[in-house]
Amino acid sequence: EGAEFFKGIGQIPFTAGAGPEESLAYKHYNAKEVVMGKTMEEWLRFSVCFWHTFRGTGADPFGFPTLDRPWDDGSNTIANAKRRLRAGFEFFSKMGVKYWTFHDRDISPEGSSIKESGQNLDQITDLALELQKKTGVKLLWATCNLFAHPRYMNGASTNPDAHVFAFAAAQVKKGLDVAKKLGAENFVFWGGREGFHSLLNSNVRAELDNMATFFKMAIAYKKKIGFNGVFLIEPKPKEPSKHQYDYDAMTVIAFLRTYGLENEVKLNIEPNHTTLAGHCYEHDVVMASAYKMLGSIDANTGSPDLGWDTDQFPMDIKNCTMVMKVVLEQGGIAPGGLNFDCKVRRESTDIKDMFISHIGAMDSMARGLKVAAKILQGGVIPRYVKERYSSFETGIGAKIAKGEATLEDCEKYVAENGEPPRLSGQQEHYENMLNYYI
Amino acid sequence: EGAEFFKGIGQIPFTAGAGPEESLAYKHYNAKEVVMGKTMEEWLRFSVCFWHTFRGTGADPFGFPTLDRPWDDGSNTIANAKRRLRAGFEFFSKMGVKYWTFHDRDISPEGSSIKESGQNLDQITDLALELQKKTGVKLLWATCNLFAHPRYMNGASTNPDAHVFAFAAAQVKKGLDVAKKLGAENFVFWGGREGFHSLLNSNVRAELDNMATFFKMAIAYKKKIGFNGVFLIEPKPKEPSKHQYDYDAMTVIAFLRTYGLENEVKLNIEPNHTTLAGHCYEHDVVMASAYKMLGSIDANTGSPDLGWDTDQFPMDIKNCTMVMKVVLEQGGIAPGGLNFDCKVRRESTDIKDMFISHIGAMDSMARGLKVAAKILQGGVIPRYVKERYSSFETGIGAKIAKGEATLEDCEKYVAENGEPPRLSGQQEHYENMLNYYI
Amino acid sequence: EGAEFFKGIGQIPFTAGAGPEESLAYKHYNAKEVVMGKTMEEWLRFSVCFWHTFRGTGADPFGFPTLDRPWDDGSNTIANAKRRLRAGFEFFSKMGVKYWTFHDRDISPEGSSIKESGQNLDQITDLALELQKKTGVKLLWATCNLFAHPRYMNGASTNPDAHVFAFAAAQVKKGLDVAKKLGAENFVFWGGREGFHSLLNSNVRAELDNMATFFKMAIAYKKKIGFNGVFLIEPKPKEPSKHQYDYDAMTVIAFLRTYGLENEVKLNIEPNHTTLAGHCYEHDVVMASAYKMLGSIDANTGSPDLGWDTDQFPMDIKNCTMVMKVVLEQGGIAPGGLNFDCKVRRESTDIKDMFISHIGAMDSMARGLKVAAKILQGGVIPRYVKERYSSFETGIGAKIAKGEATLEDCEKYVAENGEPPRLSGQQEHYENMLNYYI
Amino acid sequence: EGAEFFKGIGQIPFTAGAGPEESLAYKHYNAKEVVMGKTMEEWLRFSVCFWHTFRGTGADPFGFPTLDRPWDDGSNTIANAKRRLRAGFEFFSKMGVKYWTFHDRDISPEGSSIKESGQNLDQITDLALELQKKTGVKLLWATCNLFAHPRYMNGASTNPDAHVFAFAAAQVKKGLDVAKKLGAENFVFWGGREGFHSLLNSNVRAELDNMATFFKMAIAYKKKIGFNGVFLIEPKPKEPSKHQYDYDAMTVIAFLRTYGLENEVKLNIEPNHTTLAGHCYEHDVVMASAYKMLGSIDANTGSPDLGWDTDQFPMDIKNCTMVMKVVLEQGGIAPGGLNFDCKVRRESTDIKDMFISHIGAMDSMARGLKVAAKILQGGVIPRYVKERYSSFETGIGAKIAKGEATLEDCEKYVAENGEPPRLSGQQEHYENMLNYYI
Repeated sequence: EGAEFFKGIGQIPFTAGAGPEESLAYKHYNAKEVVMGKTMEEWLRFSVCFWHTFRGTGADPFGFPTLDRPWDDGSNTIANAKRRLRAGFEFFSKMGVKYWTFHDRDISPEGSSIKESGQNLDQITDLALELQKKTGVKLLWATCNLFAHPRYMNGASTNPDAHVFAFAAAQVKKGLDVAKKLGAENFVFWGGREGFHSLLNSNVRAELDNMATFFKMAIAYKKKIGFNGVFLIEPKPKEPSKHQYDYDAMTVIAFLRTYGLENEVKLNIEPNHTTLAGHCYEHDVVMASAYKMLGSIDANTGSPDLGWDTDQFPMDIKNCTMVMKVVLEQGGIAPGGLNFDCKVRRESTDIKDMFISHIGAMDSMARGLKVAAKILQGGVIPRYVKERYSSFETGIGAKIAKGEATLEDCEKYVAENGEPPRLSGQQEHYENMLNYYI
Repeated sequence: EGAEFFKGIGQIPFTAGAGPEESLAYKHYNAKEVVMGKTMEEWLRFSVCFWHTFRGTGADPFGFPTLDRPWDDGSNTIANAKRRLRAGFEFFSKMGVKYWTFHDRDISPEGSSIKESGQNLDQITDLALELQKKTGVKLLWATCNLFAHPRYMNGASTNPDAHVFAFAAAQVKKGLDVAKKLGAENFVFWGGREGFHSLLNSNVRAELDNMATFFKMAIAYKKKIGFNGVFLIEPKPKEPSKHQYDYDAMTVIAFLRTYGLENEVKLNIEPNHTTLAGHCYEHDVVMASAYKMLGSIDANTGSPDLGWDTDQFPMDIKNCTMVMKVVLEQGGIAPGGLNFDCKVRRESTDIKDMFISHIGAMDSMARGLKVAAKILQGGVIPRYVKERYSSFETGIGAKIAKGEATLEDCEKYVAENGEPPRLSGQQEHYENMLNYYI
Repeated sequence: EGAEFFKGIGQIPFTAGAGPEESLAYKHYNAKEVVMGKTMEEWLRFSVCFWHTFRGTGADPFGFPTLDRPWDDGSNTIANAKRRLRAGFEFFSKMGVKYWTFHDRDISPEGSSIKESGQNLDQITDLALELQKKTGVKLLWATCNLFAHPRYMNGASTNPDAHVFAFAAAQVKKGLDVAKKLGAENFVFWGGREGFHSLLNSNVRAELDNMATFFKMAIAYKKKIGFNGVFLIEPKPKEPSKHQYDYDAMTVIAFLRTYGLENEVKLNIEPNHTTLAGHCYEHDVVMASAYKMLGSIDANTGSPDLGWDTDQFPMDIKNCTMVMKVVLEQGGIAPGGLNFDCKVRRESTDIKDMFISHIGAMDSMARGLKVAAKILQGGVIPRYVKERYSSFETGIGAKIAKGEATLEDCEKYVAENGEPPRLSGQQEHYENMLNYYI
Repeated sequence: EGAEFFKGIGQIPFTAGAGPEESLAYKHYNAKEVVMGKTMEEWLRFSVCFWHTFRGTGADPFGFPTLDRPWDDGSNTIANAKRRLRAGFEFFSKMGVKYWTFHDRDISPEGSSIKESGQNLDQITDLALELQKKTGVKLLWATCNLFAHPRYMNGASTNPDAHVFAFAAAQVKKGLDVAKKLGAENFVFWGGREGFHSLLNSNVRAELDNMATFFKMAIAYKKKIGFNGVFLIEPKPKEPSKHQYDYDAMTVIAFLRTYGLENEVKLNIEPNHTTLAGHCYEHDVVMASAYKMLGSIDANTGSPDLGWDTDQFPMDIKNCTMVMKVVLEQGGIAPGGLNFDCKVRRESTDIKDMFISHIGAMDSMARGLKVAAKILQGGVIPRYVKERYSSFETGIGAKIAKGEATLEDCEKYVAENGEPPRLSGQQEHYENMLNYYI
């Protein structure tokens, strides 16, 4: 119980000036350092995810597990689950990360009945609550795994069989109870099987109506039990389904608004999903924020030349900057955070790689934060952008912006003012200015 | 004026049993043949687009024009514009196609001022009206070209310069006047420059607010002048912009609902744009129809291995079947139609290729219609799908479907009924059944 | 031992005129029907793959197994392996398929040492030999699984550790012994881990040199033991590796020619891999055939909107036609064949789906064969193509084709003959002609 | 003649510490600064391309030209061509760039006959020679435009019409004469139309044989006239053709080796083409270098979310680092260089944007050079890589590396040594180390 799982690895320090081989130190992430009025810790709100980091095995569709963890005997027992959880909290603590996230079935074994599964979850979350209190680590969000079990192969809330819908609903009920118990600040829905493999056997409208009903039921229950966490949908375009209904940020917004759910649910954006939908890395973060729907971020990355979700640790400073710029501009991401929905490569088989990968990502996001702060505080780029749109502050522009202009007004304006001037978009100049700060 | 432009090519006949080299005859499209209670002509509502078929030159980013048309002297004159228009109506007539579509600037030269452009458009549309009456060909939809002129390089309604916004608004005002004059059944907005090339220099929310304002102004004017055509937005994910705000069907629905425009605007879906957004060919047609937002279809195709809009003539029978199945299921596409937003390959330099390409596409869509009708009338596939969802017709399923179930009800149901049965999705069986009909 | 595994399913018949719901009959594949001088069976040389069809579980990266097979108790025992093999041969026989393929580790459990693995393989292949003799089913090809075991995570022949290289070499030695024993007509190498995840930690030239050495060693051994099967490399661009050295057909040809292996190794082309490399479906089949390097085909398909290998059963008649046209044009695919490297969807959980999926694919390929034969025997399209290139049969063209012309000759020819005529490529006409035959 | 075209813009200085708005100064590129034993200028060998920078108009498939250049009256005259050339050399000089590149038809108008085209080219290259001497700017490479004129729509050397082949050959003859006259250090072949749009109308093997013949003729002529520049093929997978025969680096190597051309032709790699072929940015640079076939680099970038060639200026420091690391490792790129096959965005309409864009790219590549040098000189990453492969330096590994091991040797080694150890690939650690240097 009091065993140390990561022997030989202590608390990860911030070491300014550490060299390239000093892999177990932060070179940029300095939790208490103040940037634009808040500490790094407050801006970044890092979270470790339990599934990849403590349940990942390194298996892939073409290969068997590669990752051996001495605390995990591979059994589906409560004892093993508890050991994993203790190892997890030791890891969070040594990393100095203040949040974690999990799926119900990651932390606790599925039983032979839903009742037994719930009992298992009760036991494990008792321990989780204890470890949270002991370590001060908090629950950024919980979620239900409604995609791994074979019963969900044709969908959970969008399953053609009402029995499966009901099963998913029962599972979410328990998930919400547990989220409340652990003080989850959010609750995430990722619909990996909510979609289709073939339009030939699918009634998409019936499925989407059911999905909306499912959310309404969950919202009602959440209110009933007084759970105050924010509901978040995590968009993903495809994989495992050929097509997922929560394709990207705008698709989810269309769904929420169609069914009147836009005030009850926000978005958890994962950039690796954004790029799989054909957008640039920061697109869905930007769009969700623009529509005041950005709730949290699954900070990871994919490989632009690959067509599947690789869940790599974000290591690109430019990408991290673009994301943190949005976070700074909207004044923070709380009660959301930056959850590392990332996995070590299956070839990164050393225990140390678990630390190195998170450290690298945290340093990269910290650099992104600092660069974004320099951009905003430097003021040059923001001033350029403001000036670019300044014609909407006066005259016909202001009238348009207020929604008071008509087509006739515009026609009159053009008759009097003729052809507009050609104004350079100056993209390369902006790119150079960005590089100046990186 | 009475000149014949396509000498040696007469009215394209339907010739059952025509051989592979008989290229100037329909082998499947038989306009008056009745399928599921309507003629082919009524279901298919084919339309020729003026821009590709009469303004396409074969130029591409790496090459000069290849297509010489004897009636077109390349000049930007009214006389040339009129000759092209006459050639167009001869083509529509010989093809037996009852609809056409155009952009304002395809049919009529842009003048040195917006006033002059409008006067040119008046002259040309006088002739168009005359030719429409003479031939019986009608206007499926008109649209304004708000993307080709340099003034629109940074957007039209989303331009950072209010002057450009006003210019676009003035152009649309005239476009709506002309649409009314010619009895357009719809009016399309394609926002090729409504998007961004770089997020560094863009304020996306300000741009989207302006775009919504633009639509509101156009709707007000439309009502004022009593134009009854349906407003349609045509989604496209990218190209020419790096990212377009009208990414795909669901993105446009999000936009419309965010700004309360969902009852005023429907969608014109182009499958080549759908595939560029990462979806399967028929996806946006299916989704738009599911949400009762499908207004019209730009019937074309791309090449799945290419990342740009190739605007090829649709020749794949399976794809055509999937689209026509949706049209049949929603009871028709009117007042929309199947507009051939397609261009002959730049290597297809013979005048005859203009006919051959349209004939091939019309025959393919006619085959798609007939196959889809067989599927629906055969009843096997529809019956399989209905049965697949039948659990929502009674018991807990019916309660869920009516929105009357709670999470607690579901928990109780599962406690009593246990694990759901594993039901095969039978995808391959559906695929075989589809192949049976093709 | 004499147990029947697929009770209630008999020999799959050819039933002309079978309806859409008659799923357990061939509607097009009629093994003994003669097409262009050979039976369908001879042209198509269908093969069932053991890994997907008898070792596939329905697991995917986001979900647990879904496919329960009553003959498979999930254990890693010889008894279970034998039961699976007997079920396999019953399946091959009932399907009327004359070939099978396997990886060493599919059919036989990996032991605790390479010696034990070899002994297991000996036992299992004794049974396989017996079942081959009994049923007349032959081995199209064998292959070694050099990618699933963790030892191969960083590559087999391209592993940075010579110990792993040696292990792979030892495994292939046994694989070749077994292939000889079973009369394999080919032997395939698929290098799923031969590539890189990161260029930062890779020495690509060293790895490729080692890969070539590996092939040389295997060729030497093959000759030594008198194994006469054809060596085939199966290209794939990526997955599981981020980048695989055998990217596509031309990449493999570059490798073979760089190391002087082009006379010893041919290609096994999988269209799903071809499309993942950004080519059209039939591209690598066409190119490999053009260079006389096409050895065999893994007949499957992907989904054009997905970025990973879905290994679906080929059901698209046009695609099947394009592939079979190449096979007809090169006079057959023997000693290769059409191996169904395909898996039922994980939602297709009925035993019947195993049959239905193969039947659908076989019918599709049979239709492709018949359409391709009509195209070639009809003679119209071949004649058009021949005429298109006829200028190389005489005059300057013939001189060029013979390699006897110089730049100066060409300059002189152009000086005398001026600008070439503009000749339409007639793509749409060709597409219409193709549709005529489909 | 002595006119200054870029008034108000002087020689671009290197200004250490210049701020973000100081757009007309190098912040990192310091031509004479020594890095790893050579000056930046010697390592980077920057070249401005004439086509984009002096013939680009900002037109795209959906829009008209946007870029007005006061020295260019849009006419197809010799006088205009000369003015453009003078402007070009002023630009090269003010930028401090020592190389330029061109297509024959960029610098000189195509005449009404090939003879007239040649005479035009003579006149213009007389001026070019004069300007080269005057400014010291040299010709990195010349190339013939065999893709823009309609005659080449179906290919140049792969055209089905021998007349077109001959025309292309005559054009290349003149191109080689001119390259020799101007002292070109290389001569590039980019086959934008050497490919197919449809396999239905194509005989790929006949076309590839002709393409090889074409190269043989050009090589013979090159030798005859004593032109010593290096022949380079520039791979591109697609666009404008649906499929180009020079798909990527490995495909071109396959072609060269199939036809025995591998000692006569090297590669000019463009990363934007590499990514369009589905590879990571630096892949083709790495592979071409590994096979000693890297001749030159078209230093640009695309947008990973776009499926066409955007020819953007390279601005990503990590990408630039990866390319320059290869250049350093192979000891330099001469006689090739880094040619900016890049265009300003069509919205970047200011003359100043021409400078800003090149400066940004040059600074980015200079940063890449400095980072790559730090990596190599720091020695940590190279040491890690060397150690990773060290097992091939002794024992069984050395025997394998020398090509002296057999499968039997390997079997024996494994029998004695058992299972290999599991060695972490440490990808994240390498990524962190890379980030340390960036």
